[in-house]
Amino acid sequence: MPSRNFTSDNVAPACAPILAAVNEANSGLLPSYGGDALTARLQTAASEVFERQVAIFPVATGTAANALALAQLAPPYGAIYCHETAHVATDECAAPEFFSGGAKLIGLPAADGKIRAADLREAIAFADEMGVHHVKPAALTLTQATEWGTVYRPEEIAALAGLAKEHGLGVHMDGARFANALVHLGCTPAETSWKSGVDVLSLGATKNGALCAEAVVFFDRALARDFERRRKRSGHLWSKLRFLSAQLLAYFHDDLWLANARHANAMASALARGLGAVAGARLLQSVEANEVFVALPPGVVAALEGAGFGFYRWPFEGLGEAVAIRLVASYATQAADVAALLGAAAQAA
Amino acid sequence: MPSRNFTSDNVAPACAPILAAVNEANSGLLPSYGGDALTARLQTAASEVFERQVAIFPVATGTAANALALAQLAPPYGAIYCHETAHVATDECAAPEFFSGGAKLIGLPAADGKIRAADLREAIAFADEMGVHHVKPAALTLTQATEWGTVYRPEEIAALAGLAKEHGLGVHMDGARFANALVHLGCTPAETSWKSGVDVLSLGATKNGALCAEAVVFFDRALARDFERRRKRSGHLWSKLRFLSAQLLAYFHDDLWLANARHANAMASALARGLGAVAGARLLQSVEANEVFVALPPGVVAALEGAGFGFYRWPFEGLGEAVAIRLVASYATQAADVAALLGAAAQAA
Amino acid sequence: MPSRNFTSDNVAPACAPILAAVNEANSGLLPSYGGDALTARLQTAASEVFERQVAIFPVATGTAANALALAQLAPPYGAIYCHETAHVATDECAAPEFFSGGAKLIGLPAADGKIRAADLREAIAFADEMGVHHVKPAALTLTQATEWGTVYRPEEIAALAGLAKEHGLGVHMDGARFANALVHLGCTPAETSWKSGVDVLSLGATKNGALCAEAVVFFDRALARDFERRRKRSGHLWSKLRFLSAQLLAYFHDDLWLANARHANAMASALARGLGAVAGARLLQSVEANEVFVALPPGVVAALEGAGFGFYRWPFEGLGEAVAIRLVASYATQAADVAALLGAAAQAA
Amino acid sequence: MPSRNFTSDNVAPACAPILAAVNEANSGLLPSYGGDALTARLQTAASEVFERQVAIFPVATGTAANALALAQLAPPYGAIYCHETAHVATDECAAPEFFSGGAKLIGLPAADGKIRAADLREAIAFADEMGVHHVKPAALTLTQATEWGTVYRPEEIAALAGLAKEHGLGVHMDGARFANALVHLGCTPAETSWKSGVDVLSLGATKNGALCAEAVVFFDRALARDFERRRKRSGHLWSKLRFLSAQLLAYFHDDLWLANARHANAMASALARGLGAVAGARLLQSVEANEVFVALPPGVVAALEGAGFGFYRWPFEGLGEAVAIRLVASYATQAADVAALLGAAAQAA
Repeated sequence: MPSRNFTSDNVAPACAPILAAVNEANSGLLPSYGGDALTARLQTAASEVFERQVAIFPVATGTAANALALAQLAPPYGAIYCHETAHVATDECAAPEFFSGGAKLIGLPAADGKIRAADLREAIAFADEMGVHHVKPAALTLTQATEWGTVYRPEEIAALAGLAKEHGLGVHMDGARFANALVHLGCTPAETSWKSGVDVLSLGATKNGALCAEAVVFFDRALARDFERRRKRSGHLWSKLRFLSAQLLAYFHDDLWLANARHANAMASALARGLGAVAGARLLQSVEANEVFVALPPGVVAALEGAGFGFYRWPFEGLGEAVAIRLVASYATQAADVAALLGAAAQAA
Repeated sequence: MPSRNFTSDNVAPACAPILAAVNEANSGLLPSYGGDALTARLQTAASEVFERQVAIFPVATGTAANALALAQLAPPYGAIYCHETAHVATDECAAPEFFSGGAKLIGLPAADGKIRAADLREAIAFADEMGVHHVKPAALTLTQATEWGTVYRPEEIAALAGLAKEHGLGVHMDGARFANALVHLGCTPAETSWKSGVDVLSLGATKNGALCAEAVVFFDRALARDFERRRKRSGHLWSKLRFLSAQLLAYFHDDLWLANARHANAMASALARGLGAVAGARLLQSVEANEVFVALPPGVVAALEGAGFGFYRWPFEGLGEAVAIRLVASYATQAADVAALLGAAAQAA
Repeated sequence: MPSRNFTSDNVAPACAPILAAVNEANSGLLPSYGGDALTARLQTAASEVFERQVAIFPVATGTAANALALAQLAPPYGAIYCHETAHVATDECAAPEFFSGGAKLIGLPAADGKIRAADLREAIAFADEMGVHHVKPAALTLTQATEWGTVYRPEEIAALAGLAKEHGLGVHMDGARFANALVHLGCTPAETSWKSGVDVLSLGATKNGALCAEAVVFFDRALARDFERRRKRSGHLWSKLRFLSAQLLAYFHDDLWLANARHANAMASALARGLGAVAGARLLQSVEANEVFVALPPGVVAALEGAGFGFYRWPFEGLGEAVAIRLVASYATQAADVAALLGAAAQAA
Repeated sequence: MPSRNFTSDNVAPACAPILAAVNEANSGLLPSYGGDALTARLQTAASEVFERQVAIFPVATGTAANALALAQLAPPYGAIYCHETAHVATDECAAPEFFSGGAKLIGLPAADGKIRAADLREAIAFADEMGVHHVKPAALTLTQATEWGTVYRPEEIAALAGLAKEHGLGVHMDGARFANALVHLGCTPAETSWKSGVDVLSLGATKNGALCAEAVVFFDRALARDFERRRKRSGHLWSKLRFLSAQLLAYFHDDLWLANARHANAMASALARGLGAVAGARLLQSVEANEVFVALPPGVVAALEGAGFGFYRWPFEGLGEAVAIRLVASYATQAADVAALLGAAAQAA
């Protein structure tokens, strides 16, 4: 599968500066388990990025970041409210249930992937009425950018987070594509996180140019109490932690993360514009980050597949004959490949 | 902390061939989650190394490898028998309890770190007598090389594994330092694993030259049923798994793992010989792998610390005034540093 | 709250024969933890009732019975399919998640409380497509009678169970109101359980006349492997187990359970007939067991509440001004109280 | 097995006043899940007994009480220090590990069953030194009376609890035989619990005359936060909770619990006196509660067994030919049976 691969942003290799940072980190006998200088520097770097003293914990996968963060917020008898298509609900083999000791994820619907305040309010009210028989409302998790490629605006986050906090819930953000959301919004990392009420962020880097690096970022360090033990007992404390910290330092350095995301988003926009112009096509969601959901005539989809372009057919109801597909761009997506795909689609239509 | 660091074998960086393999793996848009060619090749390579069709699952940490493997063997109501100083019992923040859903580790004593058959037999008999009130004997885990730097001989493993199997227990080996044991024994990987009755091996690479690579190796592939989901839900399935697989392929290639371990063991032997000759010194264990436990006069220990040599003081009873320390050598330990330490010790004595 | 209490069937005391059995069981120094003769007799009695050698395990609550049974069927990485309003999903504070170690309950909708085969098929297909990223289809749980007071017919159970088994799922029945379903159907306990494909039954007695007795019934005794340890470690193995076994023996004796359920169902039918005739009333579900869901004019509901009748207002959409309520009858419901309620409703209308 | 049964105090039936209370509670349609008047009265009664506002939660088994209480004190990554023979460690099939989500029980030795402060101090120091790699010291659990039939004096409890609290640990008491300890000490319930530093008590009643009643008692009600949900999700919240509350009310009423325990202790003392006088006998522990551990000549033990007396042979090292046995007396033990046993022993000796 060569460069015509739009199946996911995790098919890309690491970008050059991050790989270079790993190579540079590979020298000397250094304290293990996070006692090294790079890990210390990461605390400072992340605090600058977020304009606040944060506690940042690198891990290797997004599932780990999400499940660890949610376990910190929700007791085993807690309810975690998420969008019904959230990665934590459908794509992590019940990792949050595992890490939390059995908390329950309660999925809320919404066509554009963004939880509606009314649905959250209703779910909490139901729990309150049920009392001890039901799980206790404990956490809200928002995916930014969403699973449908849309982006919460800061005021939308603030409204949901405010509602959550009225009821004592912690607020988590699954930022597997946080950088993609950031560059779309054109606002600061602080504005779309703690300034909008987010308590804990799963900050993604792997989909945006790292080998294997994500981080759990606590904006109130008191919330991170004992978190190190959670990370350790789940096998996510590396002995040579410097290799994770180095990736994240490079990620932040010179705004590499934003540049990477900007490119990915631009490629997705180009895909959307081009495919939207194909006869019989319909964009199924606003393209605000690096994912494109589009319905195309069956013949076009088949032609693209036949030409070796990689992407997923996606379940979507009410399209008649048309076939929905998902295309994902990354920092590594090349304009020539986008052009090739658009050309093939136009020709097939 | 420069090269005079003998605190652990995990303070070393990655060795050159493994880092090179990571760099080489960094090209192209490739299938994620283990669908790549390197991961496929790893299955073959490991099967050759172990002279049998194995199922091998790369993960990033030894804690993950151990806890996942034990969870596969022991139900939540199971007993896992280990040495009382085993890493799984004291150094993993209850990871096996977490991954297994609450199984109980039962520590057996033994001065040299090697479980005695009589103790295992007695523990199982106690459980059998207690019946439903006690946890069910489910697994035996052996650490190879042991926490005390000693090594089980194949016939010792076979005797313990045979006893375990008589009673229906699965047999796990924590091989964080498997290569060190191998080169000490001079036997094949198969002989000290499945040919001696081991069902599942946590194969370490990180302490022996990798950045971050361990593997769970099942010798009976039926035992690996659903293991992928355990790995996934614990956050240990990397999206860019090729970066783990690449490390392990390089690890096996040209017997790199054995060369690395041989060097580490040689450095430890040199340390043991030299320190054993210091006046007032006593070796506390046979030095069969890459760890040295030695009691030294307090003044010698203080002098070494003062000279900037890194190592741990180690709890050990009945030494009178003498102080026990642990020194660990790795593939990266340099003969010059060993000589410097021995020189400093001799001078202080 | 005197006898005008229709809030639930668990507000009733124990019925006389069951209380008498508890008193009779209270003599002598007897083997504990189920080694007593009554517990042995219960195995026989249950096997006769179900026309098959069963393994029956008494516990004190329905939540315990359900969660233990489901944990036996589903691994921690498993999916348990249930109706979206199932007691296990909404009323047990995530007990199944707790007992299973984090399995995921996936709720399927259906207006009448009975899972539809098409929905189950689709959910399994989704899981299959998602592979390792999603929980593994492991169990189906059916509530009989349902949360909406309706009853699955044997052929409906058989269809769902057949589908489940095609895909390797175990089939559980939450029979908190199993007796009520039985007498409605007029078929044998075997016909609505194992003959229709049910593997494990949570058999309720508490709502139908016991002090505190439920049972987990395995129809294939091999499925009950190690179940005793699950019961023990969850604190549900009584030392004086004879007091639970005695209740269940009395429950089966002379078909007490059926008589009790018949009375409860009859009272519910009388309520349904009477309330259905009130002006502006609408029955919201078929009344097939001992629960009545009915929409009434707000004034009627208020009048009943004012007159001291106990029942719940129930969430139900699309009723306009009308108010939905739930009334539950039990073995202890008296015809006079039903008449009084109906009289008050008629007068208010 | 008639009245010659000294195997355990849980072989006895319920005592008359408690059974009567259950019968009396069996009237009327009453609020379920603890909304009844008896449960409310129990709060008051327990608060009077303990001279303090307590929060008391009835459950049916001691395993449930212990595991729920410990889960409230210890996080999943916590260490729970107990005596190495504690019921929670050896007789509950890892219930504390299950309820806590994987916390680790660390057993401390002591010949008389009473944890020594020095051992606790050392264990905590070890954990502190290990840091994140080890479980976090979280709770201390004391068994009162101990598994060896001895009793902690209030000042001993205070010393251990004080040490525990210096290090931030919560203090639990497994009071399965709390009443037996109380009457031995001749002090108040408050003195041996919260006044000595106990935070949470598992208060036993089943072994001392109830059908099935234990309670978790929190002396600081803030510590009981969300405990109701823990009880619910483990299946230990009865719908007809009044039947548990009634037992405990009767247990406290007119000091029934103390009278029962006094009788049991007296019977045990009589056994100890009598057996101690047998030629070749040796009492293995002080008999301070209702359990007797005694070494007897093999012929005597065999003779008692042959005569139909029920008791356990008990593992005990260093006795040479003599055989250790355990005898347990209860409220229901009759003086005539004690005399018969002593007679048989004397004759055999």
